[in-house]
Amino acid sequence: MASWFRRSRPRTPAPTLTSRDTATAATRVDLHELTPATDVFLGHCAALHLTFFEQLSHAVANAPRVAEKDALARAAATTLARYEALVAEIGRQRLDATAVMEPHLRGVQEFERRTMGADWHEQVASAHVTIGFLTDFWVRLAAGLPRDAREGVEEALRRGELEQPLHAIIEQAIAANPRLSSRLALWCRRLVGDTMLQARSALALHADRVRDEEQIEPVFTELIAEHTRRLDRLGLTA
Amino acid sequence: MASWFRRSRPRTPAPTLTSRDTATAATRVDLHELTPATDVFLGHCAALHLTFFEQLSHAVANAPRVAEKDALARAAATTLARYEALVAEIGRQRLDATAVMEPHLRGVQEFERRTMGADWHEQVASAHVTIGFLTDFWVRLAAGLPRDAREGVEEALRRGELEQPLHAIIEQAIAANPRLSSRLALWCRRLVGDTMLQARSALALHADRVRDEEQIEPVFTELIAEHTRRLDRLGLTA
Repeated sequence: MASWFRRSRPRTPAPTLTSRDTATAATRVDLHELTPATDVFLGHCAALHLTFFEQLSHAVANAPRVAEKDALARAAATTLARYEALVAEIGRQRLDATAVMEPHLRGVQEFERRTMGADWHEQVASAHVTIGFLTDFWVRLAAGLPRDAREGVEEALRRGELEQPLHAIIEQAIAANPRLSSRLALWCRRLVGDTMLQARSALALHADRVRDEEQIEPVFTELIAEHTRRLDRLGLTA
Repeated sequence: MASWFRRSRPRTPAPTLTSRDTATAATRVDLHELTPATDVFLGHCAALHLTFFEQLSHAVANAPRVAEKDALARAAATTLARYEALVAEIGRQRLDATAVMEPHLRGVQEFERRTMGADWHEQVASAHVTIGFLTDFWVRLAAGLPRDAREGVEEALRRGELEQPLHAIIEQAIAANPRLSSRLALWCRRLVGDTMLQARSALALHADRVRDEEQIEPVFTELIAEHTRRLDRLGLTA
């Protein structure tokens, strides 16, 4: 197991800047030497977005009221729009979408199963945490793609807005029932391991290269700091 | 129970025209005297589209391969686009979307539960049959709305394409496994009752008016004829 994996929290307190984009723009490092071939990248990323969609549509079905169903349905539509843009990029690269996605289906479905959550609150928290973390990750990983594919992927992953709507749903749920906090905090901490393993499974690692771990380390430290900020904004100790 | 309900098939063989639009354009009758108030119509129709979305997203999750997941995800996106257009129309009518949808949630969820299907094949067949039938129905029911609302609803329900993609998925599944035919034919026949009850629950009926039944009768006869054609195109005896 890589050293980043043992550190499920950053060693220093997370910055308290309100704008995450400002915070990350300054320090952002990427993973370009570990980016897999374009077909592997696109197939994995598209398959993962299908499971994001499935995760959110479960949450739509289990939502207690129309307001939450509506907000989650729009979030599900955003993941689908990103998925369709990724599939379009696969087509632009003259690759077959089904063929490049199929090898990743089992892995992402197993990930979905492990992070599904036992009830609606956990499902929404899972979607927020795992989609947030993995989207940040995949944007960095895209740095190593050829320029045209990279631009297509970045454009796809920027479509719509997920962070804020999912945050708002969880925030409201906690406001209505403050006792949720401690359970969701535990659940979100529990998600980090599976989410990092899912991210790691996308890296083109060289078994014998120490430098790989050196490249991974700062990226995962940043991703975990963003994860911590995401939970801090909900009042959940990460 | 209305007399149309006892006739779960048309008494004469269904027309064999390949284009359903041509067939219905000639005979189309509507339900304008039984259309409920605009807020009730829009709330019910929007809530129903959320369940269409849920039905299709279950089918995405259970689809055996990427190709079917992809096609069903796009169909789910179409139902969401229609839903969002209906919610936008609710806004244009200066109504509150949550308030007008909430009263219909339980009924449509019960309908969804009854028509869910035991496996993936039944789920896709349910989506095809119930969405097809109820969309035809709701377009006719819209005839009784004030003109501006009617146009908004017709525009919403015309968005994207569902009939053909769902047909293609079932057709392929049957081609791969011809023994499915008889089970799906039974299942689709079984769906008609619940689907007609769901449609009937949207009508503004007057308990003591014989003329209501006289208006319903030819419309349901046509809807059932379309249902039969939908199944005929799949080689399923309706």
